[in-house]
Amino acid sequence: MGDAAGIGPEIIAKAFVAKPNQLKGCFVVGDVATMQQAMTLVAHADVSAVVVPIHQPEQALTQPEHSVCVLQVGPPMEPVVAGRVSGIAGEFAARCIVWAANAALQGQVSAVVTAPIHKESLHAGGDRYARFPGHTELLQSVAADFAGVGVDKVPVRMMLVSPELRTVLVSIHCSLRQAIEAVSVDNVFESLEITQHYVGRFLGYSPKIAVAGLNPHAGEGALFGTEERDIIAPAIALAQQRGINATGPWAPDTIFMRARKGQPEQFDVVLAMYHDQGLIPIKYLGTEHGVNV
Amino acid sequence: MGDAAGIGPEIIAKAFVAKPNQLKGCFVVGDVATMQQAMTLVAHADVSAVVVPIHQPEQALTQPEHSVCVLQVGPPMEPVVAGRVSGIAGEFAARCIVWAANAALQGQVSAVVTAPIHKESLHAGGDRYARFPGHTELLQSVAADFAGVGVDKVPVRMMLVSPELRTVLVSIHCSLRQAIEAVSVDNVFESLEITQHYVGRFLGYSPKIAVAGLNPHAGEGALFGTEERDIIAPAIALAQQRGINATGPWAPDTIFMRARKGQPEQFDVVLAMYHDQGLIPIKYLGTEHGVNV
Repeated sequence: MGDAAGIGPEIIAKAFVAKPNQLKGCFVVGDVATMQQAMTLVAHADVSAVVVPIHQPEQALTQPEHSVCVLQVGPPMEPVVAGRVSGIAGEFAARCIVWAANAALQGQVSAVVTAPIHKESLHAGGDRYARFPGHTELLQSVAADFAGVGVDKVPVRMMLVSPELRTVLVSIHCSLRQAIEAVSVDNVFESLEITQHYVGRFLGYSPKIAVAGLNPHAGEGALFGTEERDIIAPAIALAQQRGINATGPWAPDTIFMRARKGQPEQFDVVLAMYHDQGLIPIKYLGTEHGVNV
Repeated sequence: MGDAAGIGPEIIAKAFVAKPNQLKGCFVVGDVATMQQAMTLVAHADVSAVVVPIHQPEQALTQPEHSVCVLQVGPPMEPVVAGRVSGIAGEFAARCIVWAANAALQGQVSAVVTAPIHKESLHAGGDRYARFPGHTELLQSVAADFAGVGVDKVPVRMMLVSPELRTVLVSIHCSLRQAIEAVSVDNVFESLEITQHYVGRFLGYSPKIAVAGLNPHAGEGALFGTEERDIIAPAIALAQQRGINATGPWAPDTIFMRARKGQPEQFDVVLAMYHDQGLIPIKYLGTEHGVNV
């Protein structure tokens, strides 16, 4: 459901009203009263939909059209004020994510789609979720608990996908200085392994991966930085030895353009060395069509 | 003319053949024989143009249609092989730039458009031009000589312009580590002064400048790096005190999208903190329509 004080419940309600056929079989992991309120905000004369509380995921498969199934996570949430940071909303949003992630890990649901959460709300919700900067780390923690291992055994990477570009990031929420330090042979190679495995599973074939350099012109023969020569190229060579279809390091300022859908080289995904290197091109044409995987 | 072993002469010839009216009054600073050869490469049945040697810029204003005026710089160039790095071509290309830049500084021409040069050719052309990484630094050197001062007194910045975005770069050809070090209050402020002055002169009004942050989310309140708080924000404040219409630091991953032509905020130009931050969005839609100013 996302943070109840944010835009998540309303966006979900709008999606159910606008695209009932595409959302068949989907249900909301959240709070029944919050979703009822969100429905009243988005309903209009031509379309209405009714919130139907469910208790098991399977019930979502047999509901009539124009219904929004909501699985109540724990007791009803205390009301919160829209637009205000709230520990109640933050804690509840985190519990919804944990419930949904566990349901996915157990095979009760096929996939999880998340709505926005707020870092300050998570923090205000108590110690349990205060340490998580966002969905990525929270999902990683649930997966590690489910497997009975530490989070270091469950490496994760963020992938951004727009209709014309996929990009996986070596590091995310840290300073640019720290991001440079995170460009190690291990991290680049691990990023390539994760990309090969999960993007490959999604596409049904071994993806063609373009690896971006870190420095301008990918270092211009080590004139503008040595990370390409000493770190990125060796990691790519290692990946190629394991059968991963990766090439590079390519000049960062042109590789995202070259990897756009419809371009002749037909790259499936770009491995970006840091947050903004990948997010600037993904968001350049607008933020309406990109998702974080 | 650019490097005679490169694509410059041919591109120039194509431009004169394709857009004779738009190139009225323009002339080539270069080598007559090289331009004659380039014309034979691009001429086709419907269109022909003849190379006309000139000796003074004014002669270009009175030439008939379908002529390509070429001002020979020094003695004819020894022939070079297309596609091969050549010190002869590098040295000649540099001399053309120096001639054209001086003509502009003296007011003999209104503007200079450059064709591609090659760093290795410049280097092979002897000590005189070996130290210049590209046009930017060579033009800076000519301007400093013309003013009779050191290059440190003639600060320059590179600006990239596409039909939908302008971006000025704080630093260009150095490693990402060095680019972070180049983000100082002095350099950011100087970049804003140069942007205000020259973009303002071009537009005819004080430009609305968006300043990008260095770190993800522009540092997220110093959680992901402190350069925004300690360096970029103070430089913007200083610029605002001097009447410069600058705002930020904005999150790098959305400011270029927000500054695209036609977006509601109507930014005129983005100050980017490093090479790829500005060049990735400029080149994302293709490299055919962007120019370096």
